[in-house]
Amino acid sequence: IRESYDAAQGWIVVTIIGAAIGVNAAFLNIITEWLADIKLGHCKTAFYLNENFCCWGEDNGCDDWQKWTGFSPINYLIYILFAILFACTSATLVKSYAPYAAGSGISEIKCIIAGFVMKGFLGFWTLVIKSLALPLAIGSGLSVGKEGPSVHYAVCTGNVISRLFAKYRRNASKTREILSACAAAGVAVAFGSPIGGVLFSLEEMSSYFPLKTMWRSYFCALVATAVLSAMNPFRTGQLVMFQVHYDRSWHFFEILFFILLGIFGGLYGAFVMKWNLRVQAFRKKYLTNYAILEATLLAAATAIVCYPNSFLRIDMTESMEILFLECEGAEDYQGLCERDHRFRNVVSLLLATVIRIFFVIISYGCKVPAGIFVPSMAIGASFGRSVGIIVQALHEANPQSPFFAACLPDVPCITPGTYAFLGAAAALSGIMHITVSVVVIMFELTGALTYILPTMIVVGVTKAVSELFGKGGIADRMIWFSGFPFLDNKEDHNLGVPVSHAMIKDVTSIPTNGMTLQQIEGLLAEDNYQGFPIVEDEHSKILVGYIGRTELRYAVDRAKRERTLSPQAKCTFAPPPSADVTTPGTDIITPGLARMDSFNTIGFAEPSTTASASSSNFINFSRYVDTTPVSAHPRLPLETVMELFRKIGPRVILIEYHGKLMGLVTVKDCLKYQFKVEAMEEVANNGQHSG
Amino acid sequence: IRESYDAAQGWIVVTIIGAAIGVNAAFLNIITEWLADIKLGHCKTAFYLNENFCCWGEDNGCDDWQKWTGFSPINYLIYILFAILFACTSATLVKSYAPYAAGSGISEIKCIIAGFVMKGFLGFWTLVIKSLALPLAIGSGLSVGKEGPSVHYAVCTGNVISRLFAKYRRNASKTREILSACAAAGVAVAFGSPIGGVLFSLEEMSSYFPLKTMWRSYFCALVATAVLSAMNPFRTGQLVMFQVHYDRSWHFFEILFFILLGIFGGLYGAFVMKWNLRVQAFRKKYLTNYAILEATLLAAATAIVCYPNSFLRIDMTESMEILFLECEGAEDYQGLCERDHRFRNVVSLLLATVIRIFFVIISYGCKVPAGIFVPSMAIGASFGRSVGIIVQALHEANPQSPFFAACLPDVPCITPGTYAFLGAAAALSGIMHITVSVVVIMFELTGALTYILPTMIVVGVTKAVSELFGKGGIADRMIWFSGFPFLDNKEDHNLGVPVSHAMIKDVTSIPTNGMTLQQIEGLLAEDNYQGFPIVEDEHSKILVGYIGRTELRYAVDRAKRERTLSPQAKCTFAPPPSADVTTPGTDIITPGLARMDSFNTIGFAEPSTTASASSSNFINFSRYVDTTPVSAHPRLPLETVMELFRKIGPRVILIEYHGKLMGLVTVKDCLKYQFKVEAMEEVANNGQHSG
Repeated sequence: IRESYDAAQGWIVVTIIGAAIGVNAAFLNIITEWLADIKLGHCKTAFYLNENFCCWGEDNGCDDWQKWTGFSPINYLIYILFAILFACTSATLVKSYAPYAAGSGISEIKCIIAGFVMKGFLGFWTLVIKSLALPLAIGSGLSVGKEGPSVHYAVCTGNVISRLFAKYRRNASKTREILSACAAAGVAVAFGSPIGGVLFSLEEMSSYFPLKTMWRSYFCALVATAVLSAMNPFRTGQLVMFQVHYDRSWHFFEILFFILLGIFGGLYGAFVMKWNLRVQAFRKKYLTNYAILEATLLAAATAIVCYPNSFLRIDMTESMEILFLECEGAEDYQGLCERDHRFRNVVSLLLATVIRIFFVIISYGCKVPAGIFVPSMAIGASFGRSVGIIVQALHEANPQSPFFAACLPDVPCITPGTYAFLGAAAALSGIMHITVSVVVIMFELTGALTYILPTMIVVGVTKAVSELFGKGGIADRMIWFSGFPFLDNKEDHNLGVPVSHAMIKDVTSIPTNGMTLQQIEGLLAEDNYQGFPIVEDEHSKILVGYIGRTELRYAVDRAKRERTLSPQAKCTFAPPPSADVTTPGTDIITPGLARMDSFNTIGFAEPSTTASASSSNFINFSRYVDTTPVSAHPRLPLETVMELFRKIGPRVILIEYHGKLMGLVTVKDCLKYQFKVEAMEEVANNGQHSG
Repeated sequence: IRESYDAAQGWIVVTIIGAAIGVNAAFLNIITEWLADIKLGHCKTAFYLNENFCCWGEDNGCDDWQKWTGFSPINYLIYILFAILFACTSATLVKSYAPYAAGSGISEIKCIIAGFVMKGFLGFWTLVIKSLALPLAIGSGLSVGKEGPSVHYAVCTGNVISRLFAKYRRNASKTREILSACAAAGVAVAFGSPIGGVLFSLEEMSSYFPLKTMWRSYFCALVATAVLSAMNPFRTGQLVMFQVHYDRSWHFFEILFFILLGIFGGLYGAFVMKWNLRVQAFRKKYLTNYAILEATLLAAATAIVCYPNSFLRIDMTESMEILFLECEGAEDYQGLCERDHRFRNVVSLLLATVIRIFFVIISYGCKVPAGIFVPSMAIGASFGRSVGIIVQALHEANPQSPFFAACLPDVPCITPGTYAFLGAAAALSGIMHITVSVVVIMFELTGALTYILPTMIVVGVTKAVSELFGKGGIADRMIWFSGFPFLDNKEDHNLGVPVSHAMIKDVTSIPTNGMTLQQIEGLLAEDNYQGFPIVEDEHSKILVGYIGRTELRYAVDRAKRERTLSPQAKCTFAPPPSADVTTPGTDIITPGLARMDSFNTIGFAEPSTTASASSSNFINFSRYVDTTPVSAHPRLPLETVMELFRKIGPRVILIEYHGKLMGLVTVKDCLKYQFKVEAMEEVANNGQHSG
């Protein structure tokens, strides 16, 4: 029973986590919608209802839902005041209780899943504050989305819950597997797109994604989405706010315009990334101490500028829903479908696009929970819709043109809503540099099956365009910007030097015999290394193993607890005689079971049976020594070593030449070297240009 | 220009391949449909039209399309004769021209993408014969599908076309990347599901799937699908034969039945795999020489048994289309939606399920191109539809039952078509052991957006059930059955022994100095090793490098071509002095550029400038020596070594202990050891049971 419980534990944990994420997402959805609507008016029958629920079953508002006053300038003022209130509360919460809850969190989670440790980033308080501050930030009308934060609170939930189980408290690698699954669930509930979530986790979040993790992610996303669906926050039976169905198919000549949308997506991504990073640099330098004020002013500015534009005034998801719709049979917001209003609408939409881009650039990264998915999609949608309206106008002006020959006469031919849809896909792909996940997410959002090829074309063009402007989406750029140690597996490192150039040569190693307890404790106290190679003796430097700092600390403490030891006690780190190497029939080897996982955990072999350690002047630490550390030849190219770090995931790689320890490298050493080279190249290039 | 052409070459190649696959798929679709219909009748206006095109725009047949005779027993006979003719032709083509064109090919392609070489399996003739024989095999009515073969001919296309480019002729690893992309395109055109194809390639085909390959696959699948869509073989503007749209959503109580379908899928997969492997063993033993006869008899038996059942008589895709449909508004095949015929239909469907399972078991693996995707889906669909009809009957019999409380009164509540849809997903997932790809494929097939959660639940249950019956889908089982050297990355190897147990100890190594040309040539002539470790001298066995057999052969030949050499000429393999190790400032290192790729290619370093090799009695082979071979400690667990093979992909791993060569391992050695252990365990278990 115990065994099967152990096997099932992983699934139980994932189920609990998924359910928690789903419940949280449902509440956040309801609160967010209410906050967004309360800025415009209130429900007479029950103040806690938003417009949709207040006017259940009725289109275009009802009498129960009242604007705050009948006089619009005062409404405008109330709108601004609410926005300021929400933003200020959100920023204060973040600043006072959980500074890590600011921003989107995707970059940091990427690093954490890759093995980087950030204490508290996934803690309980971050979870609580992110969940509270997120609806406020979105409700304030800032140009921020909920998807990044959604991933963050999902991963926090996973971290907090998995800590309750001993199995995951001990095993960092298993926990990271859970975190990957949570990231999938986070996107799944944010977009109502379970498969899209899994693919996002695969494409963007995880550097290593074995099938087992995929299956975990699948399950976690499924549970979260099912719970969300059962709670049915929108009371429509749908997972997302907007679900459209396109009746008409597309025509081949439209591909020309689709390519245009794709190019827009790529340019948008490159432009926003470039300027946003500059704003971030400015913010880091000057605004660190004025986070609350900054968020408040931003919200005020956003509210003041956006209210007059009918597409910017409403919530971004709502505006996307409106823009995606076909004209036939749907309610008509602001005369979007009327021929007479076309010019006004196009101007209004293009204005909305430009203003929103500006606000995204200055808002993303401010100290409230803030994602960039939905704002990007909204920008793409408004641009796409305006292109769609223009194409429609062109067609109606020249119905006989051979270019439009594929259109049937007397039937609407162009569906501007689909352009909005494709524009949203392009912008999302452009900013995040993801492809397959975008297609699946858009597909799951709208069920636009017939539009899968156009979506793929648009996203493909976007991808090609954005690659011209450098590698990596905004999450990767933020990682470089923040200087986290992260080995990007998308980048081709091309340094052309052996690892010996990057390695640390004067390594503090421990001889197998001869060191006293005092010396060991001295090493532990004074040095800042993560661990120590074990060598036969200081002179020969023949490598025999490696001991992690934590393991050594633990071993020393335990030895001291078990019996009194003189500080002069001799410590031995000699591995058991390697009889097995020459006589392979024997079975004295400790099982190498699940070794890949244990690289990052404190995995102890069972106590060695040699009783020679009983004397108080002699301590045997052999069983804490990793006798088969990952080692490499000094002339192995640095790229290959980085490959090893990524794929095998050790904390350190020892450099061994003909059995002798020559040095060691960590991920940080590799990156340090890489940055040094890149900086030198830049200097050289600048010299050339100016010379 | 040359450089950018080089960079673009990859995309050009993928575009050409994608287009070729799309064109091929379109023709195959048209021919297959025609062949399937010609068995039942012919078109009076033009014999080359199938029923759909003949009766364009009319439902349920027309006058132009005539059955062969008015008398049904003769029609039956003609049906059987056509089936025999097609099957016999198909089997003869395969047997005479390209034996590799038999079967599905997925297992073999998996191995090839993992690095295994099978000469001719992806050749031009295989491509031609597979493309010709596939429509015949499907047309013959055998219970085989086109998806596996579709992947095979797509990969063949990719291989044949990429051979035309020097870049891919030389680089096996780049070619494998292309092959992964082709596998994606193959599934994409077979199902009209581009994203599903990419995920299938990721989940099932490739052991190593970096993002770059994903993006290549995406592009290749996109081009292939776009070309297919432009050719529009079904003249419906749709990519697939069936596209349904469900108007009603599902109810939570239905999850109970969905779970039932999931369990069916798991059991179906386990049952078919078990018995199909037995049939395969029987076939291998007794039927190898009667391949044509076997296929013919199978086709005859299938035709005789299937014709009387209205769901088995028609093409499998057609029957799925019918089974998936909602009852409202669609044409009613065989009174499938009528209440009065319910009992008859359920019996007929269950009968169809059982018969089809039987024929799948005996047909899959026979010597014609044969996939198992569509047959499995058809089986799942017929079972699912019968469950759906039963549930519908239950509901109509007890409309007041609290169990059905979620149903609105007087409105149809249960949609049997969705059960068929979910049953198909379950069966497909059960047989192939894939999850995410199945969900996406089903989704792309039907656009059933509201059913994504049920699909995920069903597939999840299926996955859980099938894991109870052992690991790996039918493709993996076939790999083990055929004994290909393939390291499955899904399996957790748990051997608990160090690599020294599996390694070859008496390795033929070459000392850096002292061997004569004659001796080297002797080594090349007599030994069957893939390569030779280079050691300092035979006594110390200090490892300095590794030279592949091919490289050594090439080096010897070249040296002999360049100048006359005495057989007694001394050969040196000493690497250049390792100055860099101690003085890292120097730059004499050969660039380690793109080293990961070069593991599997013949990458030579530039000629060394030391002119000491000019004497005819002295040959310097140093520059052909890989001075940094992948090496491992003898006590490294075997699992970790297998991990290294999978992730780093060397041909051989040298076992080095304190700088000395202890032995070497290849993938085959690992597998050999694993099989030995497994066989011993089995014997031990059997002993226990019988004892």
